[in-house]
Amino acid sequence: MNIQPILTNKQLYPYLLKARYGIEKESQRVTKEGELVTTEYPKKLGNRSFHPYIQTDFAETQMEIVTPITNSVSELFRWLAAIHDTVYRSMEVQEMLWPLSMPPALPKAEENIIIAKLDNFEDVLYRRYLAKSYGRRKQMVSGIHFNFEFDDEMIRKMFELQEEYVNYYQFKTDLYLKVTRNYLHYRWLTTYFFGASPLSNPRYFDGNEYPQEPVRSIRNSKYGYKNHKDVKVSYCSVEQYVADIHQMVEEGKLSEEKEFYAPVRLRGGSSVADLANQPIRYIELRNIDLDPYQPYGISKEEVEFLHIFMLFLLWTDEKADPDEWVAQGDQLNDFVSLEAPLAQTACYDEAQRLLTEIREFIEQTKLAVSTEILDHLEEMLEDPAQTLAGKIYLDSQKSSQKELAVQQGLSYYKKAWQAPYQLAGFTNMELSTQIFMFDAIQKGVEIEVLDEHEQFLKLTAQGHNEYVKNGNMTSKDTYITPLIMENKTVTKKLLQRAGFCVPQGKEFTNKKEAYTSFAEFQNKGIVVKPKSTNYGLGITIFKVGADEKDYINAIDKAFNEDDSILVEDFLTGTEYRFFVIGNQVKAVLLRVPANITGDGRHSIKELVAKKNEDPLRGENHRTPLERIQLGSSEQLVLHEQGYDLASIPSKDETIYLRENSNVSTGGDSIDMTAAFTDDYKQVAVQAAQALDATICGIDMMIPDKKLPAKSPNAYGIIEANFNPMMHMHCYPYKGKGERVTMDILKLLYPDFIE
Amino acid sequence: MNIQPILTNKQLYPYLLKARYGIEKESQRVTKEGELVTTEYPKKLGNRSFHPYIQTDFAETQMEIVTPITNSVSELFRWLAAIHDTVYRSMEVQEMLWPLSMPPALPKAEENIIIAKLDNFEDVLYRRYLAKSYGRRKQMVSGIHFNFEFDDEMIRKMFELQEEYVNYYQFKTDLYLKVTRNYLHYRWLTTYFFGASPLSNPRYFDGNEYPQEPVRSIRNSKYGYKNHKDVKVSYCSVEQYVADIHQMVEEGKLSEEKEFYAPVRLRGGSSVADLANQPIRYIELRNIDLDPYQPYGISKEEVEFLHIFMLFLLWTDEKADPDEWVAQGDQLNDFVSLEAPLAQTACYDEAQRLLTEIREFIEQTKLAVSTEILDHLEEMLEDPAQTLAGKIYLDSQKSSQKELAVQQGLSYYKKAWQAPYQLAGFTNMELSTQIFMFDAIQKGVEIEVLDEHEQFLKLTAQGHNEYVKNGNMTSKDTYITPLIMENKTVTKKLLQRAGFCVPQGKEFTNKKEAYTSFAEFQNKGIVVKPKSTNYGLGITIFKVGADEKDYINAIDKAFNEDDSILVEDFLTGTEYRFFVIGNQVKAVLLRVPANITGDGRHSIKELVAKKNEDPLRGENHRTPLERIQLGSSEQLVLHEQGYDLASIPSKDETIYLRENSNVSTGGDSIDMTAAFTDDYKQVAVQAAQALDATICGIDMMIPDKKLPAKSPNAYGIIEANFNPMMHMHCYPYKGKGERVTMDILKLLYPDFIE
Repeated sequence: MNIQPILTNKQLYPYLLKARYGIEKESQRVTKEGELVTTEYPKKLGNRSFHPYIQTDFAETQMEIVTPITNSVSELFRWLAAIHDTVYRSMEVQEMLWPLSMPPALPKAEENIIIAKLDNFEDVLYRRYLAKSYGRRKQMVSGIHFNFEFDDEMIRKMFELQEEYVNYYQFKTDLYLKVTRNYLHYRWLTTYFFGASPLSNPRYFDGNEYPQEPVRSIRNSKYGYKNHKDVKVSYCSVEQYVADIHQMVEEGKLSEEKEFYAPVRLRGGSSVADLANQPIRYIELRNIDLDPYQPYGISKEEVEFLHIFMLFLLWTDEKADPDEWVAQGDQLNDFVSLEAPLAQTACYDEAQRLLTEIREFIEQTKLAVSTEILDHLEEMLEDPAQTLAGKIYLDSQKSSQKELAVQQGLSYYKKAWQAPYQLAGFTNMELSTQIFMFDAIQKGVEIEVLDEHEQFLKLTAQGHNEYVKNGNMTSKDTYITPLIMENKTVTKKLLQRAGFCVPQGKEFTNKKEAYTSFAEFQNKGIVVKPKSTNYGLGITIFKVGADEKDYINAIDKAFNEDDSILVEDFLTGTEYRFFVIGNQVKAVLLRVPANITGDGRHSIKELVAKKNEDPLRGENHRTPLERIQLGSSEQLVLHEQGYDLASIPSKDETIYLRENSNVSTGGDSIDMTAAFTDDYKQVAVQAAQALDATICGIDMMIPDKKLPAKSPNAYGIIEANFNPMMHMHCYPYKGKGERVTMDILKLLYPDFIE
Repeated sequence: MNIQPILTNKQLYPYLLKARYGIEKESQRVTKEGELVTTEYPKKLGNRSFHPYIQTDFAETQMEIVTPITNSVSELFRWLAAIHDTVYRSMEVQEMLWPLSMPPALPKAEENIIIAKLDNFEDVLYRRYLAKSYGRRKQMVSGIHFNFEFDDEMIRKMFELQEEYVNYYQFKTDLYLKVTRNYLHYRWLTTYFFGASPLSNPRYFDGNEYPQEPVRSIRNSKYGYKNHKDVKVSYCSVEQYVADIHQMVEEGKLSEEKEFYAPVRLRGGSSVADLANQPIRYIELRNIDLDPYQPYGISKEEVEFLHIFMLFLLWTDEKADPDEWVAQGDQLNDFVSLEAPLAQTACYDEAQRLLTEIREFIEQTKLAVSTEILDHLEEMLEDPAQTLAGKIYLDSQKSSQKELAVQQGLSYYKKAWQAPYQLAGFTNMELSTQIFMFDAIQKGVEIEVLDEHEQFLKLTAQGHNEYVKNGNMTSKDTYITPLIMENKTVTKKLLQRAGFCVPQGKEFTNKKEAYTSFAEFQNKGIVVKPKSTNYGLGITIFKVGADEKDYINAIDKAFNEDDSILVEDFLTGTEYRFFVIGNQVKAVLLRVPANITGDGRHSIKELVAKKNEDPLRGENHRTPLERIQLGSSEQLVLHEQGYDLASIPSKDETIYLRENSNVSTGGDSIDMTAAFTDDYKQVAVQAAQALDATICGIDMMIPDKKLPAKSPNAYGIIEANFNPMMHMHCYPYKGKGERVTMDILKLLYPDFIE
């Protein structure tokens, strides 16, 4: 089949740079000093019997990070970032990940390399077999498995554009086989550029043959972790591939299919045998060394190169019999792997030729890729010191490879702990959703972001789907419940009838009726407000009662904002937010209006700027707290107290810049969960029940929380919130905080999360 | 106790005109010719064993309408209107309600007066006893029972302002007792003004003593329906009242408590004995004759007078020993009842004095009531022809009382059937909610309007509450489901993964990415649209594909409306709305854009005006269809077809005035429920299931509904609607219509509604 005219056909153009990617990445857990840990798999993580994102490889110390299948490089890296963040912050605080493929110094006694303590005994038995067959030391090497799938539409279009094949499945399989054989033939090129295991660390080779270090890639050389020499599998056809693997297993040369450690695996169904009935769906490249200069072990550049390389391998024809072609590749790769990292490669000319061909291919298919990648590859070809192996070797010379690894590892560790509330990769989403996603990843609940801008997630665990918006809108509440809470009048009616204290009052839909009701409201504190605004517009408060003229003005002001207005009793006390989930109060928060405390020296403006330096303060619900603004509202509030921005408050004097206490306008959040007795919490729980709400925020005014909740006017419920912010509970300004996101996850998957 | 200083205290002022009202009103079912019907209780109504609104009194023909407790006169009349509307349109179409207290001509044989066929045998036995004890004819008289309760806050304030009573319950009870005795003493005044049974109809008195007609009120006289003379109950105290009734029952003078037919009953708990343990809660005035000049048997004026009268009776002191005081009243009332309706009453001076005292009372308490009521009463006092009895007698003289009754009855009947889709009393609510409320009233589901402007209802049946907004938002859907449907991207993803045909496409959040994706969309019909607008703004349709320049313009236009845009395949076909409830399609609707059909003579403007005359067309979802507008959108659509408003379409030519087919922009609704085979309906049901929706509208584009739904591209789902209009299904422009409101009611109360 003459493939080049097909690949240059205009119809293919939109699909060439589309693909699906997935990464599995192993890393050893080490101490911050670079010593292999002796602790077990982190307890905070969900059970690894089914964890979709975080697994263990051979050893108990060897974490395996598994991304979901992604549709773009950026999405792939978001997931790498998010899962890494979760792994870092689920391990003991003194542990980090070792950034090299070659393990850190190993224990003197091999049996101190602890095999992963998996629940499934078969999995343990398999690892015991590996330990016996290859030795535990060999198994401690780590790498990246890169799963690559061409866009399905691209393959379909290609099929339509050719005439040789009548069977689509066969066509697809043959395309992948070609790419696979070509990759096996040319993979020495990736070893040259991205090989990253030039040196071993102490005791890796204890008792085994070892190479003359430094090399380009111990891991990809014959000294790396490979099958025994008698394992031979042909890639000439899928049938042969399947038959060979089965034969190896039958003859006992492999204990089972998965022991086949080829640099490329063909992937279809769940077992190798499934390839007989369905086309190859994707291929798994297994020869990628960890790049210690990258926080997630691989650079975007490398992934982008691999995509171009896959397309090129589809484009370029094989130049020998399939088995021969692959065998040549094995030899070349063995050779390049063991070259000294700073030496020019013996395959220099061939590499040069390939890069030129790749450039031509890009030009002919008009592939919209930056030329920087190829420029960089050419630089690396000219200057081996710029290859990964070259850099690692040189940097290791400055101190030691261990020092390099510790230094790199620590920098990634610090990054993960720097803003522990955020989830790397998803920091553009709202903080509550980031925290919620962190918890889901930690516990092994699969996430799909259905709509990023809308904080819309799909969760899956135990075959059960749940949809969640804003981290708090779930199937556990009914359609009508948020509508009840959205409507202040309805909320109040239901609470009142259920026997709760709510501000007494009246709704008006015409001014005249409101005016003539003055008599009912005189002589007491009242609030006049539009029915359906939440932002303070049109609200007038008369703390000790109004005269008729002011009352009428307030009515007019409220009617300017809405067709319906409310006149309600003014409640005194402190406002607390009770966060109810299920039938429990999971958190109580006191919100204090935006404020600063004077030091007798700095102006209000300076004190605000200083308070805003706190990294917990940001904007738009992406941090636990919001920065205090100095807009007209704040200046008005200052003005009413006789201050302006230049005023210098005296020492320890606290000055408020807002009347409302919302965290979203710079307020402080103070965790009061432990400060409340159960009786107030029960009021909140029962109020939520009266509104038929599973997840909600109940706002209560409480004059004196030491009084029993049953005392007259001990509390007044002023609002029920159907979209209560969660991050302010998780990371309060003061207090320990409550992980309400995890409570919601438990609500959705009660049997799944311990 | 000196009550007058208390009632004039300023603190009471806001509460005097507040009260709670409830009405029970009996009416005989008659044919449109005024003959007593022989049919049974209407089958469409819910079971009368528990129906809160619609009951039967003594006879099978005798409907009893029961309003809920209401807080204002206007609310009381809304409910009277709504229940009457429901009763009229639930009866056989040839039946109506007899507007007089005195029954229509009765059957010659008494046994042909059929006792109500109630399920509960005890209720039947009681009526058999009554038939035996009083005769069936006597039981056929109808009237109004008016339940009146002072504002609770008023009584509490009064209690605070006095010093004589220390027990609040006793205080409250004594107030009601005073009012009751005063009412019994002065009730002749209401008999004079509002007595409305001057004449009997054939065979009412057969075999009994009868008065010299005409009188003011047969029903309130000794010839009316009263207990036997040996029944004597004292109102001097609650204890005595309870004891006397018990004694009457014990002695067999009453068969049970409810046989005590006093003009006023004291009401507390569910039985008379409960009054011993709790205060009187309200009183039931039972002496009100039906006013045939009012559609609901009583005027607002009469209710307003009764409220003022109740206050006055609280204000004015009794002038004799309690039993004596009541006995005097009985005598006076007997006397006034039997006066000739056109004669000046013998109590003229006393009436004059009372009206003057009432005026003084109003003045002293500054009661904000219109003086028109008292002016009218004075006119009636001066001119007996203006009393109700006088008017009925005079009008009967013109033809006959039967003629008068038929004429009035027919006018109310016509009003109820004039706009059969509306629910009188609630016509300011959305039509879907009106229809839904009609169904609930019909079936006996209790309704409370929690928020009228927001179409927010509380339903109760079998002790179970449900909350409903817009008639279609219920607890049967979850919080997340409408959020899924609100989000076009999420909806599409879920439908697509579940295997449904949806328009293929892509979401973009930046222009550049959208521009460069042109290649994917060229050469096919596409729609470019903002993600979250529903009103057609920013949408461009390329039915046969776009060139790059137009594509880019369309992208820009869409981004002007939203941060996210969608480029989707353009689907051909006709759009149908499938209304899914539970797991069934309950209705299918074709919506045709606003249009007129020419007659070769009239202009488009005239044809639109003519089409708009249809009473089914109105505005703002208060009628089944909306009027066609002639705004800029319509004129533009005409212009594009080469027309303007003055153009005269040829005969039978149909011209469209909109591109969109929404009923809300003047479109026609055509019921297609029966026209679709089950396979398309199953697609809609399964699509709703994929979105986890119980109630929703699925919009599908179907090129040819005769093709099986499984054929390639037989349909495309373009939207799922979480707030689907219901009234357009119930009352379509063409076709029989589907009562989807009732289906929702059944979904909420599956065991309750047959």
